[in-house]
Amino acid sequence: MLDELKKEVLMANQTLPKKGLVTLTWGNVSGIDKNSELVVIKPSGVSYEELTVEDLSVVNLDGEVIEGKKPSSDTPTHLLLYKQFSELGGIVHTHSPYATSWAQAGKDIPALGTTHADYFYGSIPCTRPMTDVEINGDYELETGHVIVETFKDKSYKEIPSVLVHGHASFSWGINVNEAIKHTIVLEEVAKMGMWTQQLKGEIHSLNQVLLDKHYLRKHGKNAYYGQN
Amino acid sequence: MLDELKKEVLMANQTLPKKGLVTLTWGNVSGIDKNSELVVIKPSGVSYEELTVEDLSVVNLDGEVIEGKKPSSDTPTHLLLYKQFSELGGIVHTHSPYATSWAQAGKDIPALGTTHADYFYGSIPCTRPMTDVEINGDYELETGHVIVETFKDKSYKEIPSVLVHGHASFSWGINVNEAIKHTIVLEEVAKMGMWTQQLKGEIHSLNQVLLDKHYLRKHGKNAYYGQN
Amino acid sequence: MLDELKKEVLMANQTLPKKGLVTLTWGNVSGIDKNSELVVIKPSGVSYEELTVEDLSVVNLDGEVIEGKKPSSDTPTHLLLYKQFSELGGIVHTHSPYATSWAQAGKDIPALGTTHADYFYGSIPCTRPMTDVEINGDYELETGHVIVETFKDKSYKEIPSVLVHGHASFSWGINVNEAIKHTIVLEEVAKMGMWTQQLKGEIHSLNQVLLDKHYLRKHGKNAYYGQN
Amino acid sequence: MLDELKKEVLMANQTLPKKGLVTLTWGNVSGIDKNSELVVIKPSGVSYEELTVEDLSVVNLDGEVIEGKKPSSDTPTHLLLYKQFSELGGIVHTHSPYATSWAQAGKDIPALGTTHADYFYGSIPCTRPMTDVEINGDYELETGHVIVETFKDKSYKEIPSVLVHGHASFSWGINVNEAIKHTIVLEEVAKMGMWTQQLKGEIHSLNQVLLDKHYLRKHGKNAYYGQN
Repeated sequence: MLDELKKEVLMANQTLPKKGLVTLTWGNVSGIDKNSELVVIKPSGVSYEELTVEDLSVVNLDGEVIEGKKPSSDTPTHLLLYKQFSELGGIVHTHSPYATSWAQAGKDIPALGTTHADYFYGSIPCTRPMTDVEINGDYELETGHVIVETFKDKSYKEIPSVLVHGHASFSWGINVNEAIKHTIVLEEVAKMGMWTQQLKGEIHSLNQVLLDKHYLRKHGKNAYYGQN
Repeated sequence: MLDELKKEVLMANQTLPKKGLVTLTWGNVSGIDKNSELVVIKPSGVSYEELTVEDLSVVNLDGEVIEGKKPSSDTPTHLLLYKQFSELGGIVHTHSPYATSWAQAGKDIPALGTTHADYFYGSIPCTRPMTDVEINGDYELETGHVIVETFKDKSYKEIPSVLVHGHASFSWGINVNEAIKHTIVLEEVAKMGMWTQQLKGEIHSLNQVLLDKHYLRKHGKNAYYGQN
Repeated sequence: MLDELKKEVLMANQTLPKKGLVTLTWGNVSGIDKNSELVVIKPSGVSYEELTVEDLSVVNLDGEVIEGKKPSSDTPTHLLLYKQFSELGGIVHTHSPYATSWAQAGKDIPALGTTHADYFYGSIPCTRPMTDVEINGDYELETGHVIVETFKDKSYKEIPSVLVHGHASFSWGINVNEAIKHTIVLEEVAKMGMWTQQLKGEIHSLNQVLLDKHYLRKHGKNAYYGQN
Repeated sequence: MLDELKKEVLMANQTLPKKGLVTLTWGNVSGIDKNSELVVIKPSGVSYEELTVEDLSVVNLDGEVIEGKKPSSDTPTHLLLYKQFSELGGIVHTHSPYATSWAQAGKDIPALGTTHADYFYGSIPCTRPMTDVEINGDYELETGHVIVETFKDKSYKEIPSVLVHGHASFSWGINVNEAIKHTIVLEEVAKMGMWTQQLKGEIHSLNQVLLDKHYLRKHGKNAYYGQN
């Protein structure tokens, strides 16, 4: 069942340590099968080195475990995002150090260059801090709600990452590979954003016209980047 | 004698350079056998590449060498910690660069995010500077005393690392592997703590409720992280 | 056709990830054959791992594709530079993180030490920001024009790199290998320039006499560095 | 001739890129044979990968080439140091990035922790800037003179590294391996020194008593670190 998706999710989880995007077990990747509405996700507390296809958890959108080990404790966040952001095919949560430092600072990552503009059509937002009630309630579900609230006036398709205040990042895409790619880009723009800030006193976003140009030459209806 | 423990201590010492946690021979790992009250520790000045099971020093809690080479000059610090913090099974001392920079700055590492909260239930403290009398006295033993003093009002089980002022870090755990894991986390939160501080002017600890939530979902009596 | 040049361009493109100078596909290398005035350049959106000699694009100076896949979207910038800077044999464009952070900060990299002086005879300039008309016009060609404008009063041979404001870097040389070497040096002086600035309040360029000495002992008519 | 020394010098030169202490060919190691007063040094402009025992230059203390390729352009600096600092057996010059950033900032590296104190008995000094006359004179020889001047009131044995203002570092030791070890330590304390400074506003050296303790437990007549 879901053999292809499981392989993708396994490989994506193993990509996290290979790309320096995770320490210990501080990250998890999931993917959804649109037909069955089943989600494949990393099991909780299992190391990436030992992880096998059989270990992977399969859950439905109600969070019931269908197959495999006990899923990541962050599963309720993933499930809410799949329900609310209907075109997602894959989600990555990780404590990669540069993005996490922005989350800990509680700051949006402004669009400081065309590297950012090639993937994110505006600042990568940091959520508001969660309230004590939310934290003491259904915490991981509430984490999902505060992400959805953050995208009230933004498109999750144009800005495929978020920083959760004081915590770490979630990134997503139309499939698992796109979600991993956005995680890589997020970490890189978080790093260069920090360095840019250190090089200049005040910090301003890129000119809007240049942001449009770079985003749209890759993503607009007249996109001309790549082989098609 | 102590074959299993020696293997663990050897592997843990070799993990330090593999994980980028040590330069030259600036670190040492020990483990204790609770029954015999014998401690296995890295010998002084031997490189990690050349280290063998036979080289490892075995000492009793009075510091007498039972077997192997001359132990690390930091042995009296390890022994005092085993005597004072009765549930320790392993201790790591290392000059990993981010944690050491906080020690050199003489500053506690505040709990700035949930990565920290997942392992440390509050700031990772830096000791007070040692006095000239302590430094010129039984220096390595006094290093242990100043660590114990630092934990007067804290739990060494809830905060399994310390920064020694102007020097470097000690981390510990119920066994050698836990001590290594806490060393890895310490270095990571030290790094992200420095970067977070660079991203925002004033720096404040995490909301206490979020700190509780993350620490307790992994460690509390109702912990729900991991496979059991 | 152009077998030798294609091999050089392939290897140079593959050098970018090996040397940590690129993330994903954010860079491209080209080389020119002076006789035929044909340019070999990386195809758009193809990963370095999958790239083969057959994939490489061959274009003439009018931008017409003679052979291979669709060329990099940055091709018009490369072609303009070959036309305006007549002695170039190779060009590298990449978003290497330190150089790109200076570009995002919109700042020239001053000559802060002899490492810089050994390769660059003065500051590495950052272009002015492009105008909205330029961005919405023939963007990649205009990127070339703003680079050429930046070198109005400078020698592209003495300063073989430029930062494009809010974007990233271009480096060049008399052949592909020299262009790669200048890309490596640029990233290193960008890194050390940032760190130097963090170590001192105000930042001043090197003494002009020392700059002359180092540049000229490698490059002047009485150069005495190296084996000839 | 000098087979053993040549092997040591070759391996030490190759260690520089392996330990991340050099970029391109920006560093060179030499060793001296005390009996013959011949110096083995890296040839100028040859890459570490291609370097063979046969390539190594052998020069006498007057700088005459006895064997091998044209020596490093920095040879006159090495030779002056061997003549003035009579107990040196090996010298390393390199543009390792953290130490070079301090040199570019024109600042001594203060003794900020016991890592430093274990190897350097006080600040690692930065020379004064060289005068225009010195730069335009016998530049590499004058570089040696300004280093010697910097040690007028210091012991080159207790402080085995120096930063040359606006340039990079020289480190030394009683043999080639010690010189390499001091180069590794220099880069590490330069890194942690920068980070420490970023973590605290004002920056002060370590307590003198702690500096004494750590330096002397490894180096004093009552040293007790290591296996002898």
